[in-house]
Amino acid sequence: METVKIIIAGPRGRMGREAVNLVTNTEQFELVAVLDHKYDGIMLSDIEGFHSVSNVPVYTEIEKCLQETDADVLIDLTTPEAGPYHAKTALNHGVRPVVGTTGFTKEQLLELDEICKEKELGCIIAPNFAIGAVLMMKFSQMAAKYFQDIEIIEMHHDKKLDAPSGTAVKTAEMIAAVRETKIQGHPNEKETIQGARGADFDGMHIHSVRLPGLIAHQQVMFGSDGQTITIRHDSYNRASFMSGVKVAVETVMKQNTFVYGLENILD
Amino acid sequence: METVKIIIAGPRGRMGREAVNLVTNTEQFELVAVLDHKYDGIMLSDIEGFHSVSNVPVYTEIEKCLQETDADVLIDLTTPEAGPYHAKTALNHGVRPVVGTTGFTKEQLLELDEICKEKELGCIIAPNFAIGAVLMMKFSQMAAKYFQDIEIIEMHHDKKLDAPSGTAVKTAEMIAAVRETKIQGHPNEKETIQGARGADFDGMHIHSVRLPGLIAHQQVMFGSDGQTITIRHDSYNRASFMSGVKVAVETVMKQNTFVYGLENILD
Amino acid sequence: METVKIIIAGPRGRMGREAVNLVTNTEQFELVAVLDHKYDGIMLSDIEGFHSVSNVPVYTEIEKCLQETDADVLIDLTTPEAGPYHAKTALNHGVRPVVGTTGFTKEQLLELDEICKEKELGCIIAPNFAIGAVLMMKFSQMAAKYFQDIEIIEMHHDKKLDAPSGTAVKTAEMIAAVRETKIQGHPNEKETIQGARGADFDGMHIHSVRLPGLIAHQQVMFGSDGQTITIRHDSYNRASFMSGVKVAVETVMKQNTFVYGLENILD
Amino acid sequence: METVKIIIAGPRGRMGREAVNLVTNTEQFELVAVLDHKYDGIMLSDIEGFHSVSNVPVYTEIEKCLQETDADVLIDLTTPEAGPYHAKTALNHGVRPVVGTTGFTKEQLLELDEICKEKELGCIIAPNFAIGAVLMMKFSQMAAKYFQDIEIIEMHHDKKLDAPSGTAVKTAEMIAAVRETKIQGHPNEKETIQGARGADFDGMHIHSVRLPGLIAHQQVMFGSDGQTITIRHDSYNRASFMSGVKVAVETVMKQNTFVYGLENILD
Repeated sequence: METVKIIIAGPRGRMGREAVNLVTNTEQFELVAVLDHKYDGIMLSDIEGFHSVSNVPVYTEIEKCLQETDADVLIDLTTPEAGPYHAKTALNHGVRPVVGTTGFTKEQLLELDEICKEKELGCIIAPNFAIGAVLMMKFSQMAAKYFQDIEIIEMHHDKKLDAPSGTAVKTAEMIAAVRETKIQGHPNEKETIQGARGADFDGMHIHSVRLPGLIAHQQVMFGSDGQTITIRHDSYNRASFMSGVKVAVETVMKQNTFVYGLENILD
Repeated sequence: METVKIIIAGPRGRMGREAVNLVTNTEQFELVAVLDHKYDGIMLSDIEGFHSVSNVPVYTEIEKCLQETDADVLIDLTTPEAGPYHAKTALNHGVRPVVGTTGFTKEQLLELDEICKEKELGCIIAPNFAIGAVLMMKFSQMAAKYFQDIEIIEMHHDKKLDAPSGTAVKTAEMIAAVRETKIQGHPNEKETIQGARGADFDGMHIHSVRLPGLIAHQQVMFGSDGQTITIRHDSYNRASFMSGVKVAVETVMKQNTFVYGLENILD
Repeated sequence: METVKIIIAGPRGRMGREAVNLVTNTEQFELVAVLDHKYDGIMLSDIEGFHSVSNVPVYTEIEKCLQETDADVLIDLTTPEAGPYHAKTALNHGVRPVVGTTGFTKEQLLELDEICKEKELGCIIAPNFAIGAVLMMKFSQMAAKYFQDIEIIEMHHDKKLDAPSGTAVKTAEMIAAVRETKIQGHPNEKETIQGARGADFDGMHIHSVRLPGLIAHQQVMFGSDGQTITIRHDSYNRASFMSGVKVAVETVMKQNTFVYGLENILD
Repeated sequence: METVKIIIAGPRGRMGREAVNLVTNTEQFELVAVLDHKYDGIMLSDIEGFHSVSNVPVYTEIEKCLQETDADVLIDLTTPEAGPYHAKTALNHGVRPVVGTTGFTKEQLLELDEICKEKELGCIIAPNFAIGAVLMMKFSQMAAKYFQDIEIIEMHHDKKLDAPSGTAVKTAEMIAAVRETKIQGHPNEKETIQGARGADFDGMHIHSVRLPGLIAHQQVMFGSDGQTITIRHDSYNRASFMSGVKVAVETVMKQNTFVYGLENILD
């Protein structure tokens, strides 16, 4: 495989820093430039935390960055505001985008799809790069064809504000897309303390555990006569996202189509 | 150890049948009579399911049974109505009761305590004979001294009517007895789907999972900076109660005091 | 869907009894005959344990059974000796076999494949009907593409003789078929007590836990930077096999091809 | 409770840094000095990573440090070489030691015990400050009285060299101290792949799982008729040790005796 020349947008964010690590530590990847909303015209090694990364110029303007740089892929880890524009601009310069931001509108996704077809270029938009989480959701959807009774238990640190987690809701949505609605549990079941049976999502139940010490964990349980299946993902730190970024970069170089969602490139 | 001569009250119930198995299969135990509300004056081997148990007479009247039988212990697995009377009557005949029914009033417990002191006899009332469940509760209470953030996940088959389970509530009560009330989770946490954070019990959270295939399971989770402890009990069938009955019989022969709750004889 | 008329071979075995339950309790299934190596010419309701099953004749001879019965499917739960012959004979009478025995030779499988093509009939041979176990293996194989570090922990009751279990070895084989051999763990790792790191299978590690109380459980763990995935199957009783038999019967009626392994009809 | 004035020995080590955090962030604790083998006569705020900690002098000489400082407790997180001498010297200056190093000889422990009695001062030596791990071991020892069949599964990152882990062996030793030796599993069980049944320790089995992504986890499983108990500890980072240090400091101020092992101050 030839070396893939990569631009990273958003290198100083938490995901961005991991991505710089990934690209500089992967043999067949080469970091050729970074895009940063604040610094311009300096070298990445001038920014704190990147002193050891040599020969990587920093740009503020994406147009200028793409014109002056010979790149294959743009890894974008910026914001929902910037992501869609960056993706479009990259494609127009013949650079394949791998975008980790959320917030794309339907119109924006359709437009990117159009450009990919026209230019015969790959583009991957993935709101979640944690391969483990994506596989958990994919397997859950597959298991739901044979096991209609499903409970999701997601467990996070106690600083988390929302319950259920976004991943739990996404999992339930993916399952609901293939499962006929089923009201689970005994028809006459009764909560003697309110909330015991958790959140109801299309008849499935979701339980949100919050404890100091925990990081980010989810298990999806399936029951049927005499047996249960459990699919669990434990995420311990941000490094877990990087194997997904790596697979996405490798895939975007091979496929000349538009893809939304990491689950659609894992088989 | 000398052989312990045992009467079983309620031999045809589901727990009773297991108890007959236990006593007839334990070397130092001997089944000397059974008390049954329906049959009288026949042998246990005449009743379906007990054909191989020889030489055990069946009584309907507890007084008569105790008078005609040389027994050390009465294992009572009948009903909340009969249990207290059987216990008292046994003590008055010098027989030590091991009772597995619930529903004793405070007055009945105090009265039994009095008789035990007077007669210098042991008596054990245990609403839950599953040693594993009792240890889980005991350990949870101990751990709660050092880990104030606690979530209980109980998991049962989907025929169960009430949520949370009795064991989960009992566990939470035992913990609450030693833990200062603490509202857990982020102060601003928000349920985007109602019930996600489970049932609230003194600031702890209880989650009830119901799935076909499951039997009776509970895990108690404790979190603190950088670590979690999990204490879990899985009950697969009724045989699990019998190790508790065995320990209770052995203990009631050694101790000349009244004890309520298996947790008070496990150390 | 039209009613599927079914013959069960081996109705008195443990799996066979569950299958009789399944077929008689499933609306679109009808039990039209049984094949039993011992009884002949009586009705199934004459045999102990089947008193409530009406109008089902018992045969010893498969040829005679197939000639006198209008059937769509033969569910065979007999022995490795009888299974292959039963499958072939059924196909030759236009009846689709669903066979749960092991022990087919390559030649026998090829021959059945030939007959299926010639007759345009479906036939499913499935050594393991537990859908949950089959999904666990299938998901494990899929996850192994992205997570090359894998440990299998299988847990069974302490009456089990062989370690690792057949399912664990089958899982490892399925994974090894898609994974490049990888020696896991630290290159200099050292067992201070022999066996600590478990059994080695193509660089993966398999651990066999044996405890009274356990039934049949397996979890497959996958690790990568900052994350782990766990896929677990808990089997509590034999009823767990029947959902697999049901899916197989439904599928064998729709597909006109030969299939070996339940994993190949689950998608 | 009055403020506890604390000296920390070894503030620049990984545990030491956490301890500085703990003491400066706990209301009733006050950091009055640190002991460092390298720096002397400067302030802690002059050392990198401690800029925000004001008014804490750094000493190299323990004698001088104790003479010039009004302290209640010495938290020692240095080395097996320095720990015993520091503990003894502290006691001789009326300061109560809480020591987290290993490597004390029997003679050293006896000597400290003597000094504690003579001076009527508390002293706690704890090779493991992770309360969660210590509770797991303590509960395991208690459960082993009622469940003689035990399997330990410890799971760590794949950079770990030794298997089983020190904690697993310590757990097995604590259990073996109260459990009659029992050869577990079926008497005729057979490993078809060597090592499947794990390491044998007094008849118990220990399994060591190694995967990238994992941190430090252990579960102890107990089985009996129809039930299992599982006690699990997950350690995610070094902060987990600090709750143990806190409990030790609080306890050493209340008790005027010598204690070896955190398990002996948890009740």
